[in-house]
Amino acid sequence: MKQFLFLSLGILFFSCKEAPKKPSKDASKDTFGIVIHGGAGTILRKNMTPEMDAAYRKTLAEAIAVGHAILAAGGTSTAAVEKTIHVMENSPLFNAGKGAVLNAEGEVELDASFMDGARLDAGAIAGARTIKNPISAAIAVMNDSPHVMLSSAGADRFAKEQGLAVAPPDYFVTERRIDALKRVQAEKASGQASLDKKTAFYEQQRMGTVGCVALDQAGNIAAGTSTGGMTNKKWNRIGDAPIIGAGTYANNASCGISATGWGEFFIRSVVAHDIAALVEYKGLSIAEAARIVIHEKVAKLGGDGGIVGLDRFGNVAMEMNTEGMYRAHMNAQGEQTIKIYKYE
Amino acid sequence: MKQFLFLSLGILFFSCKEAPKKPSKDASKDTFGIVIHGGAGTILRKNMTPEMDAAYRKTLAEAIAVGHAILAAGGTSTAAVEKTIHVMENSPLFNAGKGAVLNAEGEVELDASFMDGARLDAGAIAGARTIKNPISAAIAVMNDSPHVMLSSAGADRFAKEQGLAVAPPDYFVTERRIDALKRVQAEKASGQASLDKKTAFYEQQRMGTVGCVALDQAGNIAAGTSTGGMTNKKWNRIGDAPIIGAGTYANNASCGISATGWGEFFIRSVVAHDIAALVEYKGLSIAEAARIVIHEKVAKLGGDGGIVGLDRFGNVAMEMNTEGMYRAHMNAQGEQTIKIYKYE
Repeated sequence: MKQFLFLSLGILFFSCKEAPKKPSKDASKDTFGIVIHGGAGTILRKNMTPEMDAAYRKTLAEAIAVGHAILAAGGTSTAAVEKTIHVMENSPLFNAGKGAVLNAEGEVELDASFMDGARLDAGAIAGARTIKNPISAAIAVMNDSPHVMLSSAGADRFAKEQGLAVAPPDYFVTERRIDALKRVQAEKASGQASLDKKTAFYEQQRMGTVGCVALDQAGNIAAGTSTGGMTNKKWNRIGDAPIIGAGTYANNASCGISATGWGEFFIRSVVAHDIAALVEYKGLSIAEAARIVIHEKVAKLGGDGGIVGLDRFGNVAMEMNTEGMYRAHMNAQGEQTIKIYKYE
Repeated sequence: MKQFLFLSLGILFFSCKEAPKKPSKDASKDTFGIVIHGGAGTILRKNMTPEMDAAYRKTLAEAIAVGHAILAAGGTSTAAVEKTIHVMENSPLFNAGKGAVLNAEGEVELDASFMDGARLDAGAIAGARTIKNPISAAIAVMNDSPHVMLSSAGADRFAKEQGLAVAPPDYFVTERRIDALKRVQAEKASGQASLDKKTAFYEQQRMGTVGCVALDQAGNIAAGTSTGGMTNKKWNRIGDAPIIGAGTYANNASCGISATGWGEFFIRSVVAHDIAALVEYKGLSIAEAARIVIHEKVAKLGGDGGIVGLDRFGNVAMEMNTEGMYRAHMNAQGEQTIKIYKYE
């Protein structure tokens, strides 16, 4: 009888302990870290030339090395996110800054957002056309305006007033994106592709957003996201990238997240904040929280894409429900992971 | 010994039961419900004439009666939210639709969003200038576009293509808002007021957003928010009202929320989704979740404002950290609450 009662006690005690689970990690191990993405989507090995594969890996390595060096030298997570994203915005490979995709009128409309997990402060721009590095404009909105989100011509004007680097519209436009717009419009016109009836190529044209999350040695998390949005977008559409809570969220109490994918579904799922809420309120690990939101919630609605994130212990999440996501991670020891395809 | 063990078992069992707390309510009692706000801020009895007080209460009563009648007749929460908000958008008393506040150039820029808690689908517009009823445009974006959020001239163009009611820019402009803009600009020019150094009058000029949350007899929650934003806003600023997760969120699994207040802080706090996350993930009541987010989180950052919300059981929250909030609630029994001041 006594044994039975002790057993019952044990079982009850154990079931009590199950929730909430707290993420635990040897805090001395990862004193800082950085993770980036360059977009998620139908990225198949068979469709990539060895040259393209190598070019993406090289730029991801260059970008993450910039931020890692800042963090290793004791710099802030804000500086690491900004400078890392600059490398990707300045590269025509990614759908952000130079090389952004084109809207239905053949123009770029640039979206970006940034969040500082220490102050819970944030900045964002949407629909800008002349800001060379949108992530810097998002940070300037946070630091130097009374607002959090500026848009369209006003965002361009603010950036210029702040003395940020501006570029003429044709700086951003590349042959590759002109061709992509023509092909998407032709596929749409012929009825081959629509948002409901997608070809792999069509689907790919809303991918390529870049993002970065960093944890610095002071324990501060920052997250940023920058994108040109979706090829052939209309009506000054705004996606998830400039939306705090959807494309970007950072909170020292939980984690930082940057998302990439089909923005409409990421807004509806409030992806970045939902992952942070599962970490903070349910005690889930960042990896488990990301898995639930990307594979169960977003996928259930019919959306696809992925996220990268870091929690306050340096635990990393790189989660996607697509065939690939350009992504890289470096920890405090300088160990580097660079991946493109889902399985590699 | 045996008694001690039974006692221990009881204690452990009880402590296990404590978390998560599930909101419980007699489901047969509130089969539907509706709650609205018309803005939160420095609304003091001493500054209101009896006529103004009566005019606000009359319009709140008219608005909520429209939605309540739809719900009582078995209509959808979407229809109830839309038609209720129309009454407030069409009234010059509130900062939405006709009577919206003016930006630094003396123009209106209209923001609105809507979320359907059954489908987790959503729509939003930001920075529109010619849409008579912005909430209807937000719903049309959800139902009739592949996007969730449209902005500026594109939002106006989309609404026109959809055959929604358009209005010339001067339809929206009222003497009261022209005077308010002049006074805010004069106070700013004289250094009396700035975003850091606020006068009560200046502060008031970012208030008046309208919103509605409804629970219909099918158990579906919908939420919507519509606003002209902040008087004297610059750079095509976007506030929290059109941001899914910040100003508006609805999820049948938890609750629906519409927010009003200093939008910048509501974006940073992802207010609407954070309340829903506390309800869903921590099992808090909607009232307790709203109290934590408005009084602890938003207030701690320096922000003010309020929310209205309903959970799936019809439990209501009307929470603010300001001197007042225009607000009303009606339950399935037709019991009506209309309040303006914090204490009444």
